[in-house]
Amino acid sequence: MTDSKTRAAGKRERLIGAAALLLHKQGVEATTLADIAKAADVALGNVYYYFKTKDDIVAAVIEEHVRELHQTLAAIESRCTAPGDRLKGLLQALATQGELVARYGCPHGTLCQELAKRDGDLSASAIMTIPVDWAEKQFAAMGRADARDLAIDMIAGYQGTALLTNTLRAPHLMERECARISAWIDSL
Amino acid sequence: MTDSKTRAAGKRERLIGAAALLLHKQGVEATTLADIAKAADVALGNVYYYFKTKDDIVAAVIEEHVRELHQTLAAIESRCTAPGDRLKGLLQALATQGELVARYGCPHGTLCQELAKRDGDLSASAIMTIPVDWAEKQFAAMGRADARDLAIDMIAGYQGTALLTNTLRAPHLMERECARISAWIDSL
Repeated sequence: MTDSKTRAAGKRERLIGAAALLLHKQGVEATTLADIAKAADVALGNVYYYFKTKDDIVAAVIEEHVRELHQTLAAIESRCTAPGDRLKGLLQALATQGELVARYGCPHGTLCQELAKRDGDLSASAIMTIPVDWAEKQFAAMGRADARDLAIDMIAGYQGTALLTNTLRAPHLMERECARISAWIDSL
Repeated sequence: MTDSKTRAAGKRERLIGAAALLLHKQGVEATTLADIAKAADVALGNVYYYFKTKDDIVAAVIEEHVRELHQTLAAIESRCTAPGDRLKGLLQALATQGELVARYGCPHGTLCQELAKRDGDLSASAIMTIPVDWAEKQFAAMGRADARDLAIDMIAGYQGTALLTNTLRAPHLMERECARISAWIDSL
């Protein structure tokens, strides 16, 4: 890769990274392209070279969340063999996020919820279907015929706790709920 | 009450009602005072007589949600005597909201989540603490020492399902989850 291409890739990645943080901290609606340019230390005029509109950069943030989700789940799969251990591995990863969630909510859940209120083609639903589908696969591997329902219950339990953790500014809720869901998985 | 006072009360109520609908449909950030004035059929110049800023009207919407919540819970208490029946009464009321939640999310949860991302004094956390405290009281009346945790689990289960119902546009999830939580209450 030439130097100018490296710099270009660096700028695009910086913009997506800055946008992901700002969407999490202040939401899609309250974030402007100018905010993102400033946070990424990229001249606003330059942003348009990579992204024509705010929606284009939001779509890139969703893609990045999807990429990271696949990576996280693949890492859990290679670390744990038993499906129950894989599910608990995901919960362990989520349990560590209490402080961040108490401040800004779940980065996935809040983005999905905000975009669901908007008209238009932009949807973050993949960010929810990926963990639900993955959890369903694990419950099915545990021999559960109601694997889909259990997967929905598990992800809903996590997302609802994230909402309460955020609204009540109570980081400890996240750890307790993840421990509760883990105990529930052991009891199945 | 004089005629002019009746008209004034009517306008204020209309503004709050229109604001509550718009905040639910499109969110706080995307809603302007002009949108609210138009939806309430009140001249924009007139709105300032009742509310100086958008935050003032958002605060009035939160107060209205709190008032309605107390009313709903009081109605359930007078209809049902046993604490388990009261909890299931709340779930029955929530289960009927599937279609609306699939379109716009839970009016309470999405408002809490959006306001939690903002700096400033405006918080909708009362909208969450009221049902959690109420559910805790019912679980305690059932003799449960872990009443607080159970109340958090129940409201988190509902809120997380509302988020998935909304993101996946799947109204049936709401009814299934409310039935699941009701069965869980019976099993306690």
